[in-house]
Formats: sequence, C-alpha cells, structure tokens
Amino acid sequence: MTDSTPHQLLGLYDSPFVRRVAVTMKVYGIAFEHVSLSVFRHMDAMRPLNPLFKVPMLTLPSGEKLYESAYLLDYLDELAAERGLSPLTPRSGAERRQVQQLMALAIVATEKAVAIAYEHKRPAELHWADWTSRLRNQMRQAFTMLEERLDGNFLVGGRLTQADITTVAGIGFVRYILPHEWPAGAYPALERLADRLEASAAFTAVPLDE
Amino acid sequence: MTDSTPHQLLGLYDSPFVRRVAVTMKVYGIAFEHVSLSVFRHMDAMRPLNPLFKVPMLTLPSGEKLYESAYLLDYLDELAAERGLSPLTPRSGAERRQVQQLMALAIVATEKAVAIAYEHKRPAELHWADWTSRLRNQMRQAFTMLEERLDGNFLVGGRLTQADITTVAGIGFVRYILPHEWPAGAYPALERLADRLEASAAFTAVPLDE
Repeated sequence: MTDSTPHQLLGLYDSPFVRRVAVTMKVYGIAFEHVSLSVFRHMDAMRPLNPLFKVPMLTLPSGEKLYESAYLLDYLDELAAERGLSPLTPRSGAERRQVQQLMALAIVATEKAVAIAYEHKRPAELHWADWTSRLRNQMRQAFTMLEERLDGNFLVGGRLTQADITTVAGIGFVRYILPHEWPAGAYPALERLADRLEASAAFTAVPLDE
Repeated sequence: MTDSTPHQLLGLYDSPFVRRVAVTMKVYGIAFEHVSLSVFRHMDAMRPLNPLFKVPMLTLPSGEKLYESAYLLDYLDELAAERGLSPLTPRSGAERRQVQQLMALAIVATEKAVAIAYEHKRPAELHWADWTSRLRNQMRQAFTMLEERLDGNFLVGGRLTQADITTVAGIGFVRYILPHEWPAGAYPALERLADRLEASAAFTAVPLDE
C-alpha cells in the first residue's frame, strides 16, 4: 500500500452497511477515498465500476474489489491487527461470539429498517401494510433485545467494539431515513450510546448525507 | 457438550441460509436436532422459541442461542478446528479472502433470489415487475461471476470450502422454489458443481422439503 493508491470505498453513507465500514476505517486510521455513487440514482456511473450494483464495495490498493460489509470488516480487522491495533471484533472465543451476537441483533434491526425503506420506494398503490408491520415488529424486537443487553457505555466488555458501531449505524439510518419509525424515548440506553458515538470523530467524519 | 443435549437448528431447509448451516454440520459430523418450523406458517410455535422470527437459529448445548448464518458458520468452524478438522473457511490471509469473496457472490445471488420469492408472496395486485426485474439482473450477474471463476471441481483451491456449500445451497433454492428463474444451461460449470454436491452425503441428509 502506498499513499498514492489508497483504499476506495464505494457507496453512499445513507446505507448503514457502507457507513459502518467507513466508521471502522476512521477508527483504525486507514486512509480511503469515498466514491459517493448510489445504486439507484447513479446507475450509469455505477455499472462499469460495480456491475453487481452491490454496496459497500471496497477496492484495495492492489485493485482487488471486496463485497459484503461483514467481509470488508473482517479484512480491515486483519489489517488493523497487522498494524498492532486491537481489532473491533475479537479474533476468537467467547468474546468474539458475544460481539457477533449483539451485531446479529443490530443487523436484524438494520436489515428490517432497510426493507421498510425499500417498501417506501414502491409506487404508492403497491405498498403492503401487512409486510411493513411484520418488518416493524422484527426491527423493534431486535432493538428491544439490544436495549436489554446494554449496561454501561458500550455493548460488550466496556470498550468500543463492532457491535457498537453496527448498532449506531443502524440507529442513525432509522433516525435519518425513517424518523417516524424511531419511537423516541423507547430505547433510552441505545439513544445515549448513539448520541455519544455520533458525536465522536469517527462518526462525524462520515456524515449520513455524503 | 454431551450426547443428551445436542445442538438444535431451527428453520426449514427451504431457506438456503438454514440449509448451508445444516450441510456444514453434516460435513463436520456435528450431531444436531432439526426443529422444522416456518417463520411464516408456524408463528405461534415460533414466537416463544424465537421472538425475533429469524432463522437459522442455533441453540448450543449450553442453551445459548445464535443468530445469523455467517456467525453460526464462524462458530462451527471454530468448533471443527478444536476437533482437529480443517475449517471450511480458512482462518486468515489471502485464502480466507478468496473463499469469502466467492461466498459474497453466492450470498448476493441467494439474497436476490429470496427477495424474488418474497415478491411472489405478496398479493398479486401488489407485485412490482420493475423490482423483480432488478433483482433478477443482480442474481444473474452474481451467478455469471461465479460461473466465470469456477475452474475445476471446486471454487477455491481444489477442495470443498464454504464457497461451494453456500453456492450450491443458493442454486438448490432457486431450482426448488423458483425453477422458472433458473436458466437451464446458462451456467454449465455451476450446474455440474450443484449436481455433484447435491448427490453427496452431506446434502442428501438435508433435503429441501424438511
């Protein structure tokens, strides 16, 4: 890796899966260029770069292109460990499983929120209220389970982990894109976590409208 | 772990994400009970076990419940390594990234196929043809990229990896649930891989209709 060919991250930060990768790179201090293209609004520009229309996509200094935010994070954790940093997801054992399982709840909440947003993209006459209701119930159940597990400043082990980043990226998405779906006051511990992390350098460097 | 409290896997095998976990446990020789409940058809029985309505869910001998098939596989890989088996996803480095990136393509293809199946679940008057068409294009692009990378009997390194299992679980889902969406003859190398693995002991032990 040289300074002249940094990592490139493709996708808008209004995608919580793009944003969690960007925040992780900021926490690790890994430089990258952000390519702000939408898979919906910039299809002609996206196609030659990313014919799969899948974001986030991370282009490595070698030119290799990586897909799936979970695997991007896995790669970044390995890179960070090589540089002597403590990985945001522990490498093995019980603590790894604990972080992964809180992330799993955050991923369920986030995926259901994204699915509600997709439902809103449909022509109005093609909306299906039963489906949105099912998604909403799952999203709220996942946030409730996270709220119950949050005791202190961080979700796991009293320090920042990927569980916190993924959770706060999901909450940020709901509040920004679907504010009427965020029941203010229902998740006080999660709100405190989100407000604190959104004010941190890594999150403010990755604004939702970029 | 004792024989009297094996692992329990919740979810139907017509979910490709449940099935890839079940096949992985068969390959590793990890005994488990299969709890065949649908998140749609068995909601009353599902609720007390799994209020998140998220499958697969793996209950460990300790009683701990794990969500997200990627994390279930990660746990199983660690368990297999403890038992002296070679993990289906390499633990680090270039080979790990290679397996993950072929899995990423399989996951995109599979998720888009699942989304097409969800579109079919909607009342007929709420179908959106433009959306199905977008999903179909992404699914086919991902299968095309897998077809181009498959050279020999396995996707990576001449041996069975999780890339093969996830790919074949995805193809099995499309052929079983959405047969009209599988363009027969378009992906000859993938078809040979799928036919060969579907005939193997691990896949035949996990039939799509269970």
